[in-house]
Amino acid sequence: MSQRLDHVYGVILSGGAGTRLWPLSRELSPKQILHLFGTDSLIRQTITRLTKRIPEDHIFIVTGERLFEEIRNHLLTEFPPCKNVQYILEPAARNTAPAIALAAWIIMGKDPEAILGVFPSDHYITDDQPLLDALEKATEAAHDGYLVTFGLQPDRPETGFGYLQQGEPLSQHPGVFRAARFIEKPDLEKAKELIQDPRHLWNSGMFVFSARVLLEEVERYLPELHQALGKLATYSSEDYERFAQQEFCRAPAISLDYGIMERSDRVALIPLSMPWKDVGSLPALAEFHPKDAQGNVAVGHILQEGCQNSLLYSDSRLIAAIGLEDLMVIDTPDATLVCSKERAQDVSKVVARLKETGAQESVSHRYSHRPWGSFLELEKGSTYQVKHIEVTPGKRLSEQLHRHRSEHWILLQGTAKVTIDGKEDIVQANQSIFIPANAHHRLENVGKIPVRLIEVQNGEYLGEDDIVRFTDDYGR
Amino acid sequence: MSQRLDHVYGVILSGGAGTRLWPLSRELSPKQILHLFGTDSLIRQTITRLTKRIPEDHIFIVTGERLFEEIRNHLLTEFPPCKNVQYILEPAARNTAPAIALAAWIIMGKDPEAILGVFPSDHYITDDQPLLDALEKATEAAHDGYLVTFGLQPDRPETGFGYLQQGEPLSQHPGVFRAARFIEKPDLEKAKELIQDPRHLWNSGMFVFSARVLLEEVERYLPELHQALGKLATYSSEDYERFAQQEFCRAPAISLDYGIMERSDRVALIPLSMPWKDVGSLPALAEFHPKDAQGNVAVGHILQEGCQNSLLYSDSRLIAAIGLEDLMVIDTPDATLVCSKERAQDVSKVVARLKETGAQESVSHRYSHRPWGSFLELEKGSTYQVKHIEVTPGKRLSEQLHRHRSEHWILLQGTAKVTIDGKEDIVQANQSIFIPANAHHRLENVGKIPVRLIEVQNGEYLGEDDIVRFTDDYGR
Repeated sequence: MSQRLDHVYGVILSGGAGTRLWPLSRELSPKQILHLFGTDSLIRQTITRLTKRIPEDHIFIVTGERLFEEIRNHLLTEFPPCKNVQYILEPAARNTAPAIALAAWIIMGKDPEAILGVFPSDHYITDDQPLLDALEKATEAAHDGYLVTFGLQPDRPETGFGYLQQGEPLSQHPGVFRAARFIEKPDLEKAKELIQDPRHLWNSGMFVFSARVLLEEVERYLPELHQALGKLATYSSEDYERFAQQEFCRAPAISLDYGIMERSDRVALIPLSMPWKDVGSLPALAEFHPKDAQGNVAVGHILQEGCQNSLLYSDSRLIAAIGLEDLMVIDTPDATLVCSKERAQDVSKVVARLKETGAQESVSHRYSHRPWGSFLELEKGSTYQVKHIEVTPGKRLSEQLHRHRSEHWILLQGTAKVTIDGKEDIVQANQSIFIPANAHHRLENVGKIPVRLIEVQNGEYLGEDDIVRFTDDYGR
Repeated sequence: MSQRLDHVYGVILSGGAGTRLWPLSRELSPKQILHLFGTDSLIRQTITRLTKRIPEDHIFIVTGERLFEEIRNHLLTEFPPCKNVQYILEPAARNTAPAIALAAWIIMGKDPEAILGVFPSDHYITDDQPLLDALEKATEAAHDGYLVTFGLQPDRPETGFGYLQQGEPLSQHPGVFRAARFIEKPDLEKAKELIQDPRHLWNSGMFVFSARVLLEEVERYLPELHQALGKLATYSSEDYERFAQQEFCRAPAISLDYGIMERSDRVALIPLSMPWKDVGSLPALAEFHPKDAQGNVAVGHILQEGCQNSLLYSDSRLIAAIGLEDLMVIDTPDATLVCSKERAQDVSKVVARLKETGAQESVSHRYSHRPWGSFLELEKGSTYQVKHIEVTPGKRLSEQLHRHRSEHWILLQGTAKVTIDGKEDIVQANQSIFIPANAHHRLENVGKIPVRLIEVQNGEYLGEDDIVRFTDDYGR
């Protein structure tokens, strides 16, 4: 058994549009990297859970190109940092079947006996022992060729999930069953009917299977996808970016459930009874915080008078709420959402409208993590930008230059070593230093407390991509 | 008649707690200096209206010590600036009777024949011709010893104003009547009854009387106030601040209506038919903006979906509003109010709670006017502060020093002359300069476009009152 676990890999699906929890989540700050649900982010909780059974370097995070940098920055700045997880970049977002098949293809290239445990990155699980126990059973079954799913014991007629119907037990694998049927997200009436029958379980979106078996099923049921994967391997790394997306998009964009699991006769099911949450919308956030006697949840700097059953959430600013009922107020530095709870499903619609206008508020926060620390955008004009930058003790930014902007740094706290065109300076609180455009420069926190500084950029072009990197501690 | 107008003075009452339109208004940014109602602020509109009949240096603004600087800055930065208006500082806020009696006392000291026209600073009047015409009639009546009030033709059973009952005509003064009765703010039933009778008019809170006659009535009906005014005059300017407040507070805090007008038999009334608004609460703001088909008013960067009859107002940030009904969302850089329209009267209550905690959000905005330009607070920590400062072409700040903080200035735009301990420098966009603590310094915009700069303050104490001024163009 322990030998078999050597071949187990964790695959964490970490795409996500960041729309349903907007404005807390953004395209580049999806739910799984937020700190809303306990001390760690959900992706970090997922990794911590898996490393109880799987070494960190056997964990692969599947994500898109845009999100990759953000997720890696997030996992490097968490404490302790996740330095050894690996990343698989989807050439395009095409739902879960292509993403998982790509992971299987890549991991099988490294280990032909690979068994994959596939997990969403945004589940909230307070007690993971049932899952860890089930993982061992699932590995055994996967070794014998089963595609194993996990069914969660429902406690309410939920309409937001699909259901699985438990079939006959597998005689060779105690606690593992046939999956008799996949049932799509039901309406309320149907959901009430389903949970009358104890064989009906929530479809958790978690899977365990051998990479080889999965790819056999992909070849059978999704031949275009199998073909695309084969072609991807033939491109040199130079052509890869150019062709991979095109190739990948020839295969249907389809979920693993629809594409494979509902069709295959090798699907097994392990029932799980486990405290579990899919924080799929803003009202669900309320469950993570205490309610007052009127059913309100207030997080942050809130002053309320006569509110009922409302969710009041502020990042930093003061919110005064008077006479609200069944309402959500979600305040962030650059955007405020005020929404009736029963219209929570329309948040995605509004974010889609926002995206159409190219609004920054749909894409990112004014606050960003970097492997060396973080920055907050204080003000942005057409020819200038002001940031508050924090650098962790012992960390340094890449050696870099900017073609279009110069930078003034004024230190508020700490001690930094600043190198400009080869010349070193020690800069301390209340000192400033000027970096002309086109100068090679590097900033290092050589002290024991965080360096905090105000950066004032002046220039005709202020995009984050006006950066030429020379050497970088983070391989960027 | 024209000779008589030489003795006419405008008295503009400009106290106000800045609570009813919070968070748009603040203690130091009351309604009358906001730019919400047309291009000019309401106090500026009031001054412009009066200067059609009264020279600017005959206009006195009565306000409190804290608000004085803000109002003067406001009137100096408006274009063209009101440089010649005079200011009367109430030693304490004690309602309108003490404020108006103090103004009468001071102005009569300068001109024993003074006739005062007393006006609130926050009325919105689109056509002031009826008022200007009435002013001449009122001056005649005041000259004959009448205390003249103005009654406005009601167009609805308003419960937010008091009412006046028109009495017999004054034979000597066509268009002027006896005031038969003062009626307190009625309930809705009573208001409906009142407006059935065309003799009932809204009490406008505007008055015209001779300073001498008013003070005779003060002596008769509010003897403690008359005594206090007498004593104020005996203090030397050194003692004034110490004793005036104490003295002033011995007299009752009472409105002119209750204290004098309801009791005096010298009260006259001029009926006025004039488009007039008292913007007494946030819902009234909606009347200044166009409504969409669902009755919503949206001002600023707003994205709404399925809202009805709501007021959505944003200063700068994005507000997304979904499924709101009869709601107000008022967003400012440091505070957001979300309030059901029918609870608008509770805004003051919440602001009172806020004041108890000493919260800055009840006192001032992050944006401040100065006679030389303006500043915006970008970030504030315990030992540092970042501001964006704008200096009007040709203007300069006072020569000053700070005991506790040093300042870094990084120019974003324009050309400034900076003098530090007697040494002059020209500083341009993308240059920076450092002002150590205790250095005499002065900043002047010597160019033709606004100077914009980022100021980074470092220090142990960052209060605005850590300033020693040497010379100042604005007499501060």
